[in-house]
Amino acid sequence: MAETLIKVIVAGARGRMGAEAVRAVSRAEDMELVACLDRNRAAGAHRPEDVGLAGPFFHSLEACLASVQADVLIDFTRASVARTLLPQAVAAGLRPVIGTTGLTVSELHDLDVQLRLQERLGLYAPNFAIGALLMMRMAEWAARHMDGVEIIEYHHAGKIDAPSGTAARTAQRIEQVREQMEPNGGARWQVPIHSVRLPGFVAHQEVIFGGGGERLTIRHDSMDRTSFMPGVLLAVRTVMKAGAGLIDGLEHVLW
Amino acid sequence: MAETLIKVIVAGARGRMGAEAVRAVSRAEDMELVACLDRNRAAGAHRPEDVGLAGPFFHSLEACLASVQADVLIDFTRASVARTLLPQAVAAGLRPVIGTTGLTVSELHDLDVQLRLQERLGLYAPNFAIGALLMMRMAEWAARHMDGVEIIEYHHAGKIDAPSGTAARTAQRIEQVREQMEPNGGARWQVPIHSVRLPGFVAHQEVIFGGGGERLTIRHDSMDRTSFMPGVLLAVRTVMKAGAGLIDGLEHVLW
Amino acid sequence: MAETLIKVIVAGARGRMGAEAVRAVSRAEDMELVACLDRNRAAGAHRPEDVGLAGPFFHSLEACLASVQADVLIDFTRASVARTLLPQAVAAGLRPVIGTTGLTVSELHDLDVQLRLQERLGLYAPNFAIGALLMMRMAEWAARHMDGVEIIEYHHAGKIDAPSGTAARTAQRIEQVREQMEPNGGARWQVPIHSVRLPGFVAHQEVIFGGGGERLTIRHDSMDRTSFMPGVLLAVRTVMKAGAGLIDGLEHVLW
Amino acid sequence: MAETLIKVIVAGARGRMGAEAVRAVSRAEDMELVACLDRNRAAGAHRPEDVGLAGPFFHSLEACLASVQADVLIDFTRASVARTLLPQAVAAGLRPVIGTTGLTVSELHDLDVQLRLQERLGLYAPNFAIGALLMMRMAEWAARHMDGVEIIEYHHAGKIDAPSGTAARTAQRIEQVREQMEPNGGARWQVPIHSVRLPGFVAHQEVIFGGGGERLTIRHDSMDRTSFMPGVLLAVRTVMKAGAGLIDGLEHVLW
Repeated sequence: MAETLIKVIVAGARGRMGAEAVRAVSRAEDMELVACLDRNRAAGAHRPEDVGLAGPFFHSLEACLASVQADVLIDFTRASVARTLLPQAVAAGLRPVIGTTGLTVSELHDLDVQLRLQERLGLYAPNFAIGALLMMRMAEWAARHMDGVEIIEYHHAGKIDAPSGTAARTAQRIEQVREQMEPNGGARWQVPIHSVRLPGFVAHQEVIFGGGGERLTIRHDSMDRTSFMPGVLLAVRTVMKAGAGLIDGLEHVLW
Repeated sequence: MAETLIKVIVAGARGRMGAEAVRAVSRAEDMELVACLDRNRAAGAHRPEDVGLAGPFFHSLEACLASVQADVLIDFTRASVARTLLPQAVAAGLRPVIGTTGLTVSELHDLDVQLRLQERLGLYAPNFAIGALLMMRMAEWAARHMDGVEIIEYHHAGKIDAPSGTAARTAQRIEQVREQMEPNGGARWQVPIHSVRLPGFVAHQEVIFGGGGERLTIRHDSMDRTSFMPGVLLAVRTVMKAGAGLIDGLEHVLW
Repeated sequence: MAETLIKVIVAGARGRMGAEAVRAVSRAEDMELVACLDRNRAAGAHRPEDVGLAGPFFHSLEACLASVQADVLIDFTRASVARTLLPQAVAAGLRPVIGTTGLTVSELHDLDVQLRLQERLGLYAPNFAIGALLMMRMAEWAARHMDGVEIIEYHHAGKIDAPSGTAARTAQRIEQVREQMEPNGGARWQVPIHSVRLPGFVAHQEVIFGGGGERLTIRHDSMDRTSFMPGVLLAVRTVMKAGAGLIDGLEHVLW
Repeated sequence: MAETLIKVIVAGARGRMGAEAVRAVSRAEDMELVACLDRNRAAGAHRPEDVGLAGPFFHSLEACLASVQADVLIDFTRASVARTLLPQAVAAGLRPVIGTTGLTVSELHDLDVQLRLQERLGLYAPNFAIGALLMMRMAEWAARHMDGVEIIEYHHAGKIDAPSGTAARTAQRIEQVREQMEPNGGARWQVPIHSVRLPGFVAHQEVIFGGGGERLTIRHDSMDRTSFMPGVLLAVRTVMKAGAGLIDGLEHVLW
């Protein structure tokens, strides 16, 4: 049933996340990697063995779409690239799975409008780690029942920024839940975030809830980039469904 | 608006859980403790200051109901007591909140039938710790998305039985989720349980999920019996709602 | 062999730590509680059953020493009381075990000189929790072999000050170890301390070391005041040994 | 000062641990990698760029020692190889650093005797992870002061044997400490070991001590093989010192 395979293009295929996505799509039984995009490559297709990756390489979307047909574009480029590439891709009928961060809210909004008009789905996810997303969603639930909460995130010593994006996003969601519950009492739910930076860590986070005489802790430990790939594949399968618009966050399709 | 207070009887009021329930009900702004039951007390009411507890004491439900009117009976007795007390209470129009364990499935079933005929709600909960219930429910969710799972439970050195009831129940639920997902593949989801027994612990549990390159851990730490009381009060408020039958597990009203 | 029992006075016997010390000394087979001191009590001895504590009560050391003979004074008062009480006690031939904090370095120094002249031992310990002391000492060892370190301390929501005394002291010792190893490189060993304040915690601390590809974590969880008593009894036994001067920290007698 | 560099041969250089050792020695400022041994290589030296490793390759120790001079032989082969290689190496005046496991006690004993006669040091270490060794030593200390203890070890799902060697060794040492303290009471110190096997773990261990009202936990998390190399280099420097015989365990040189 080769016709039913989802045809996938990976943009930013030579970057770290992109290369993992190429491997993951190549191995997925329900997908076919039809092309890789990378602006730093010369025009034309390259043999897979040259780059250690399956699928022909193209330096632009135009060149790519002139040669191959596709359903989904996975984007792991940079904001400066993605802001032109993505509207082109959507206009060409592709369904975008966007892992690039740094796009503005209004750029994401424009993609949403464009996808609604086209009656196709896209998905934007700053984080594809299913474990991390489960953690965030669990934190929202716990926030409704426990008295207090703090977040500790642990990253390798080389990570300069703090708090991590995942920690900031987790805190924000907890605060939103509390605001809905107690419209005037949200102030005490400014969730404190502690950032540990040490060699020997990769990417870890703990959300600790405390109540009278009990504690509830949700912890996520991420070892390497492979932990993101089940989420990327889930996103590809999701955008193939009927629907319209840009889904903002993989967590919305986990339940 | 004293009329709207929920009138509560606590049975087993001199036991450890019962005494906590008496304190919790006394402090709750929307409840009134109207009586305490304890079979070991002589007949008649005792002054609260004698026992350090609010509310008159009775040695039997008959004597109690001859003196006071009530909405809810909280039962923290023993199975041998509860199996006669609870049908009496339901027949008298009380809504039971049952924390006593050891009743048989058919006894619970009979209470359910009796409550359906009366068109009133009751609630049976072997565990009132909201944090522990959140943990169990989170474990069910995570089981749908992660590859493997094990449970570690930690209790004080004096706890003889292993695994703990909470650990066994958590494992059972995870196994049920997996069986639904892969009707023929559940075998590999016999969830291993590790039981640690050491001084310095009270009651703690960790559910650890592992996937490719990531882990998700849900941990609950319980310090003392006060951690059960928010759950008991939530149960009392729940059985006052419209409905019929015996709710089996506080977790069904947490969402 | 009643002669060989260590005769102990507890000062601050009605405070929370003092009351625990009274109970611990009363139960120790090699000790005898000969008196309790408490300034808030009227003059004269009280019956133990009045206060739920063994031993006669006195309101001053003079009154006490006029009635009983003693070897050791355990001090759990306040700095304002201890700074007059302790020199008196040492002058009277007692060996002090000091748990009161807030004395100045020069006050402790004076006690040391006084004890050296008397050729007796005393012991000052801001922390009697043997587990916490082991943690601190282990942290000093690990600091010699691992690259980086951070501390997380967790306390109940009611603790206003941060960081905790134990965390500050642990950090200081680690920094001293590093300074000795790299006299000019200590700057990067300003140990970061994260303070978590949540209901459901009592007193907990984690010291996390990270190196290339590995982490070493030492964690101490303290549930209640009883965890300090083995350390208090160890201190009492220690000051009875031959020696002179004020030992600064129980950790010096743990090895 | 090229004369003072420690000249090192790595045996088993193409194995996983051996290859890491080659990299670590090459980078160490006080060492020189003079040769690599690997039985699967044809005779004669190979250019480093062929194998991605520094240093000439030899297929036998004889061939190697005919060409180069060396001080230390790091052995990461297999027991079947090491049991002939190591006596040869010691006879030739090399100081062995042995990471190969599976040698019998009497084989290790013979190497010890041989080294004593030669008045040189060797070091055998089933575990070069300094963090893990610190954990074991800390566990021995804590065992003298805390009431009870259990071990939890966590490894990737592919590890078939349980408990891990490190866990078994940690338990054994704790039991020895207790036996010394209470010659007749050691029975209650059969340290329970719990083995967790899940994807997402690499190699982790927790030693949990419990006492009255407190817990002390020592945890080691190992991410990858690089965590062993600081220990290998420390071993090389150690065997260069004056002394005689085979040191059994890197922990003996950590303090």
